[in-house]
Amino acid sequence: MTATLVTGIGELVTNDPKRGEGSLLGIERDAAVVVDGDRVAWVGAASDAPDADERLDVEGRCVVPGFVDSHTHLVFAGERSAEFAVRMAGESYTGGGIATTVAATRAASDEQLRQNARRLLAEMVASGTTTVEIKSGYGLTVDDEARILRIAREFTAETTFLGAHVVPPEYEDAREDYVELVTGSMLEACAPHARWVDVFCDAGAFDEGEARRVLQAGMEAGLLPRLHGNQLAEGPGVRLGVEVGAASVDHCTHLTDRDVEALAGSDVVATLLPGADFSTRAPYADARRLIDAGVPVALATDCNPGSSFVTSMGWCIALAVRELGMTPAEALYAATAGGARALRRDDIGSIVDGASADLVVLDAPNHVHLAYRPGAPLVRAVWRRGSLVYRHESV
Amino acid sequence: MTATLVTGIGELVTNDPKRGEGSLLGIERDAAVVVDGDRVAWVGAASDAPDADERLDVEGRCVVPGFVDSHTHLVFAGERSAEFAVRMAGESYTGGGIATTVAATRAASDEQLRQNARRLLAEMVASGTTTVEIKSGYGLTVDDEARILRIAREFTAETTFLGAHVVPPEYEDAREDYVELVTGSMLEACAPHARWVDVFCDAGAFDEGEARRVLQAGMEAGLLPRLHGNQLAEGPGVRLGVEVGAASVDHCTHLTDRDVEALAGSDVVATLLPGADFSTRAPYADARRLIDAGVPVALATDCNPGSSFVTSMGWCIALAVRELGMTPAEALYAATAGGARALRRDDIGSIVDGASADLVVLDAPNHVHLAYRPGAPLVRAVWRRGSLVYRHESV
Repeated sequence: MTATLVTGIGELVTNDPKRGEGSLLGIERDAAVVVDGDRVAWVGAASDAPDADERLDVEGRCVVPGFVDSHTHLVFAGERSAEFAVRMAGESYTGGGIATTVAATRAASDEQLRQNARRLLAEMVASGTTTVEIKSGYGLTVDDEARILRIAREFTAETTFLGAHVVPPEYEDAREDYVELVTGSMLEACAPHARWVDVFCDAGAFDEGEARRVLQAGMEAGLLPRLHGNQLAEGPGVRLGVEVGAASVDHCTHLTDRDVEALAGSDVVATLLPGADFSTRAPYADARRLIDAGVPVALATDCNPGSSFVTSMGWCIALAVRELGMTPAEALYAATAGGARALRRDDIGSIVDGASADLVVLDAPNHVHLAYRPGAPLVRAVWRRGSLVYRHESV
Repeated sequence: MTATLVTGIGELVTNDPKRGEGSLLGIERDAAVVVDGDRVAWVGAASDAPDADERLDVEGRCVVPGFVDSHTHLVFAGERSAEFAVRMAGESYTGGGIATTVAATRAASDEQLRQNARRLLAEMVASGTTTVEIKSGYGLTVDDEARILRIAREFTAETTFLGAHVVPPEYEDAREDYVELVTGSMLEACAPHARWVDVFCDAGAFDEGEARRVLQAGMEAGLLPRLHGNQLAEGPGVRLGVEVGAASVDHCTHLTDRDVEALAGSDVVATLLPGADFSTRAPYADARRLIDAGVPVALATDCNPGSSFVTSMGWCIALAVRELGMTPAEALYAATAGGARALRRDDIGSIVDGASADLVVLDAPNHVHLAYRPGAPLVRAVWRRGSLVYRHESV
């Protein structure tokens, strides 16, 4: 294995609480990192750096941990721009919604699903994402959910069974039968391809009792729980997440004070998805309230063709700073260490000795530029597991 | 000169009112365009397209006119991310503001200013902008304002003298002397390098009488008027713009009903700058109100290191749809034909016979994706004046 010294780092964001004099991001200036194989082998001042086989000078730029996008629905077919345009015109949309994507996904070949996911993943990598979670939920049959998860597993270890995304049209008058299916043969077919079980517990989706059954069945099958909750209205999502020890409750747009207290007293991460709030003209989640209460927060894209066709974590960071009340440091932390915690991973989301070598070089002197320069192509180079997986063309 | 046939265009946005059955964007489907030299030589159905020397199939993608960014402050030195971070933390910033950039710009060499502008312009081109306006306003001495405009002219014909950006620190107790300077020797030195004269007419900047003097002096020197107005508070900006026949009043965040009526009864464009509203946590301009009143609207980035360090017109379009009440079609029109009108140009901003061949190929089936996929790298190729100036690396 070749060791590479990345040096000339003007600002290094480590997320290491032992560095940077108590700053949230553990910032080191004039720093260097040694990447050995797929791991970080050394972090420190550039002037103290050891020798290495190769040497790369990033000329004063900022280096941050690769983004951890802990909530995506990346395996699907089709697009819903017409629905988006109608929604933005303030009209109510009577088209198919999720059912449109379910129909397109069922009709697509494996290779079509794979190609679409590959294209979106390439966008994600180019925008600095080095770990991605992928959910099922656009198949909603035993075979299609298992197929989606098999394809998702080709791209990531963080796969999530979301058979309980919506009740599919053919079960409209038989939701109990659908919950039986999800917790029975569908779970059995999907569990081998998934690490997580998820449920959309919200107004118009699955109620508390149904959601509890889905999560408990998944946990009995060896999956770890997480859930969609409190996106559309106040409800039982957070309460249930705390009850079952979910790694994360995702969305958290509508929270009562008791929800915030419950989160603060638990180990559950609140994963905020500003792309969904943006693209559905919903109110934005209040990250400030959560952070001030001591709740760990993650940011993710929620990439899906209906409510958040977003691949860029940098864009989510900028939006979180403008609209969710986060500082640039808090937003970057949530998009890296926060996402890692939401996936219960301690090997990613930070740049420390022994961590996965997931590094992003920004064409900027500091991390604030992620929010200060919204929409700008700041990502210059990306290493994932020690391999250079993206390099921006020179401009 | 070589003629190129661009064909396989799934959706062609022409902005031609004679096309597309009365749709704002003059959309043609399954279309083709012939580029001959620096001009559009033919537009129509792919099946009717004439032969050409070269042929490029864009495989069903969407083609739109190059963006016209009619409001930027691109020639400057330094950055103000610390000021941004403090502002986003909700604290008031007692640093230098514009004066910080003025000091850095005065201290920079021509080559430093040129390199910084070149880097930002490259970002703009890669995000689909083919015409850019550039203002002075960070020099605020006779020599520095003229120097900025000379450098700006290397990049664009659309240069704007904005000596009346703020009163510089050295004239703090002598604003009348500064207005004398701006309308006298500074104007004389700058007019040869500028097409436009601009003034920041707003609370805390220049008052109505001062702004009128600046614009009138500029007009007497052969420059065309435009102005910054109604950004920070209601005020005389719009009224003055209509009075002097300005091409555009830029910002228009705070408008009275009388302002909207005055704009609607005039030929003045309201140029909206959502990046500034975003980055200063200001209320967003109400595009819906203006459009419904019949006011022509443009979108621009306001690219500057203080209040809107934005280069991407696509990002502005997405924000305009989410926050300014525009439809995706209205926002795209404002970012192309609207910008052209704000610069009083009829050769850009549309894809019609004889127009400048400024074309953007989007990696999307339709223009809605500019708002539907916020933050995504949709720009695949850019032609400016008939030359391919950007091509996205394949992913």
